[in-house]
Parts: sequence; structure tokens; C-alpha cells
Amino acid sequence: MYEEKERITGKEIPVKVAVVQMDCLMGAKEANVNKTLAKISEAAAQGAKLIVLPEMITSGYIFNSMDEVAGMAEEIPQGKTVKAWEAAAREKDVYIVCGILEREGDLFYNSAVLVGPRGYIGKFRKMHLWDEDKVWVEPGNLGLPVFSTPIGRIAIIICYDMWFCEMWRIAAMKGADIVCVPTNWLKIDTLPEDIQSMAPYMAMVAANTNSMFVACADRVGVERGTIFPGKSLIVGPGGIPSAGPASSKEEAILYHQCNMSDTRKYNWTNHNVLFRDRRVDYYDVMLGSQEKKHPF
Amino acid sequence: MYEEKERITGKEIPVKVAVVQMDCLMGAKEANVNKTLAKISEAAAQGAKLIVLPEMITSGYIFNSMDEVAGMAEEIPQGKTVKAWEAAAREKDVYIVCGILEREGDLFYNSAVLVGPRGYIGKFRKMHLWDEDKVWVEPGNLGLPVFSTPIGRIAIIICYDMWFCEMWRIAAMKGADIVCVPTNWLKIDTLPEDIQSMAPYMAMVAANTNSMFVACADRVGVERGTIFPGKSLIVGPGGIPSAGPASSKEEAILYHQCNMSDTRKYNWTNHNVLFRDRRVDYYDVMLGSQEKKHPF
Repeated sequence: MYEEKERITGKEIPVKVAVVQMDCLMGAKEANVNKTLAKISEAAAQGAKLIVLPEMITSGYIFNSMDEVAGMAEEIPQGKTVKAWEAAAREKDVYIVCGILEREGDLFYNSAVLVGPRGYIGKFRKMHLWDEDKVWVEPGNLGLPVFSTPIGRIAIIICYDMWFCEMWRIAAMKGADIVCVPTNWLKIDTLPEDIQSMAPYMAMVAANTNSMFVACADRVGVERGTIFPGKSLIVGPGGIPSAGPASSKEEAILYHQCNMSDTRKYNWTNHNVLFRDRRVDYYDVMLGSQEKKHPF
Repeated sequence: MYEEKERITGKEIPVKVAVVQMDCLMGAKEANVNKTLAKISEAAAQGAKLIVLPEMITSGYIFNSMDEVAGMAEEIPQGKTVKAWEAAAREKDVYIVCGILEREGDLFYNSAVLVGPRGYIGKFRKMHLWDEDKVWVEPGNLGLPVFSTPIGRIAIIICYDMWFCEMWRIAAMKGADIVCVPTNWLKIDTLPEDIQSMAPYMAMVAANTNSMFVACADRVGVERGTIFPGKSLIVGPGGIPSAGPASSKEEAILYHQCNMSDTRKYNWTNHNVLFRDRRVDYYDVMLGSQEKKHPF
């Protein structure tokens, strides 16, 4: 866990959070990175302190070959793209979370980085791989770090990780104030047109039942026939979106003034403290002995 | 785990599920039980095979004293009320899930029973106690049984249990096709008027991310100043309500023709099998060694 030295003191930890909903162009890495820098500048100019951008937004997501993957992946943090984000974070005095296709040696990961005013802080590698992710990249092997920063404790998960309630719970139990979600949700044809993805509901429920903020930055647009449905949002511990869900088609930047210390209030009634109420005395028992070595 | 002997064979396990949203009268046990019997008859006449009714619906929920609690609690299954539900289930050839205030010796539980055409099947005791539950009743000590029946594998949880993602996951991993939720949700004043409770979203997300049906039977009405907000619903593995959410004020019976075998299809893509995708190799690691003895 990364520990910065300075901390904001007092009862409020006010952080203006921005989520950037955007499209990118498959394979046009330089143009895509420049676009992220322009969006970061725009959000910073609006006073955003923590800026979240989508999954794999420098490369695109629907690959045709391993050559394409290898051609767009970069090392973290040595690669040019992370250096550019670091420079932007320093110049604008902001924190940035952004998805990127990572290379380490001969292997690739669907990753996201956190950079701040003093440079690179850390990365997350997608733990639960969706569909052809399983062909192009390795499953995440870094666990779920929570980065302590002066603006709060920040966790990152990516897209399909949201479907696994374990991820939210682990982030909360490690003290995360906010879970940032770079994502490329898919439009699900069997869902009503105004819903398109169950993921915004997952963000709402996770925020509420874990006393956290959740900031999801989704893609829009169409890539090689795949439609990305937008609906980016920011949710606080109350569970109802504070910003968004955004449009399903247009680029957008959503903002919300979060008070990170809100997440540290767990007493729902005189008798109920969220994490004290967990039945850790029974979760193993309920699952049964044959599964005891697996959580739940 | 209760095992019935006969099973419906073939590719479909069609079960018409009913959730009964109703009010009751604090302390008027005989009238309340008669009302549940009338609702059961009505649902059975509509072809329902599994009928779910609210939490503590024979007694009311907002107690003033231990004497009130003791005066309304009954033993399970020896008590008069469970006998009446057993008779109804036999006569109508249906399965019934209903909340009831349970006495065992000198102790009390917020419980729910499952009865079927051949009588009493089993019970669940609320594991996560909300607010003054903690004064009146003991925390559930029976774990989370999944009852195998000819109409599918049935789990029961009660109200605040829904806030703990562990409960849904454990039910799914024990093979539940449907989680029945007798409940007394509370109206949350900070939520928008058309939402009133985060609980319906929890049912939707749980059904989707665990490949299950969820059937929530909530109360309506006002008891000693507490407003119960209705919004009962039935959700399938797709995550969007198949029936409801019901009104926030009126009694109602919702129906949905569920195919229980739908819950046993986990292959979301050629590469994704829901439960295979769980990162059981990392959930312990992600939480860190200090918490390893606790699930997650």
C-alpha cells in the first residue's frame, strides 16, 4: 500500500471527482493519448482533483491479433504514455486514473495506473478477464491495492471485475474511500434500451453496501461492430448516482464534489455498524466445509 | 440440506412464483394469519406454485416490549401458524415461504419457514439483525440452508441480510435457483420518492451476478410511525425485474413464470463461466494476511 506523507486534516476531505466518458480510435495510440491529455486539461480547468478515464483507452479494445496487442502495449511506468500522464498530473496538480494495455517482458495485461502531482503511484491489473481478454492478456496478478493519498484512499478495478462482489468488499475492507472503474461495458441487447448494462446498478449497490464512492468512466462509440454504451456515473455511499448515468452515445465529463470522509461513517442506526454486522462467525459455516479454503 | 425424492425431469423446470405484498395489524396474530391464508388461496387460484410472503407478517415488526414479543412468538414447526400454512400447502399443492416470529425455549428469532405439499421443509433465521431486532431476537444461528425441492433449490434470507453480498454468493455457491426474501424494508427519506429503498437494486444485481431468481415480498403500510415502502419484485438471472417493483402503498400479488433451469446456465461467452471466473486464487491474497481467517 502506497503511503503519501502529507494529509488533508479536519473533518472534510473535499475532492472534486471527474469521470471522462469518451471514444477512441482503434490502433491510433498517439491520437488517443493526446485526446486523454486534452480531456484531463478540460477536467482540471473545471477544478477536478481526481480524474478517471476508461479502460484500454489508448489502444482500443477489440483486437484482431497478438501483433496488434504487442504493437500498442507499453511498460508501466517507463512507457511514454504514463510519462505523459505523470507530466499532466504534475502540471495540473491532479490525480489521474486511466486504463492502458501493459507490457511486461513477453506478457500483456489489461491495466490501469494511478498518477499524482508527485508522479507515478501504482497500478492495477484486471483480475476478472472478459471474453477475448483471456486470449490477449494475462489475468491480473497484483491483487487489489488500495493507495493512500492526501485526497483519500483509492482503489481501482476494471470492467468485469465489477461483477464480482468480492472485489468491492475487499476494497472496502482495505479502507478504500473510492473505487475508480476504467471500463468498456458492452451493450446487452436483452436489456431495455434505456438501461443497456447492469453495471451502473452494480456501482450503486456496491457504493451503498460498502460505504464508498464509485466512479465509473465508460467508453462510447462503436469499434469493429461492438457498441460501447456509455452511462458513466459517480455514486456515493447513499447509493443513488450523484452524477450521471451519462448518455449512451455522447462523450461527456461528469463531476461531483465528493467528501471522502463520508465513507468513514458506518453507523446506520444506533444498533448497526456496517462492518461489525458482517457475520464472519458464520460465512464459512454457511458455505460448508468442502469450500472452506475459498472465501465465502 | 433437505432432499425431496421426486424431481421434475427434462430441460425446463417451470414454476409460477408469487410474491405477496401486504400489510398486517400489529399484535392481531389470528387476523394476520387468516389474511396470509386468504392471500395464499388467491395466489394458488392463479396457478402460483411458490408463494412468498413478508417478514414477521403474523406479528408486526415494531415492538414496544419483550412481553409483546413473547406474546406473539411461536415454535417452529409445532406452532399453530405453521400448522395452518402446512395445511394450506397440502390442500393447494403449493410451496409457501413466510416470515414469522419464532420462539425456541426462552429465546426468539426473526425467522421464515418453507412448507410444501408434503408439509414442513425447513426454516431460516435472519443472520444480519437490523436496529431493534438486536434487542428483541437472537442473531440467526442456522447458517443459510438451501432446500432442494421438486420445483428447484430454494434459499431464504430476510431483509437486512440483502445488504451483505456474502449471503447471495453463499446461496448461489450452494446451488440455489431462487432466493426468497420475506422483508420489511424501510422507507429511506434521503432517497428519491420513486426509489425509497436501495433493496430492489440489490435484488437485481444479486440475481444477475449470481445467476439466480430473487423474489422479494415486502410490507406496505404504516406501523407505529414507521412506513414500509412496498416495491416488491421478482427478478431473474438477467437482472431486470420480471414482475414489479410493485406500488409503494398498495397491497399486491406479483406473478412470474420462472424457469428454474435458466439459473443453471453460467456460460456468458465462449470464454466466461461465471463461477469459474471467480479469482479464488487471489481473494485471500487481496484482502491481506491479517484478515485471512475471515471470508474475503
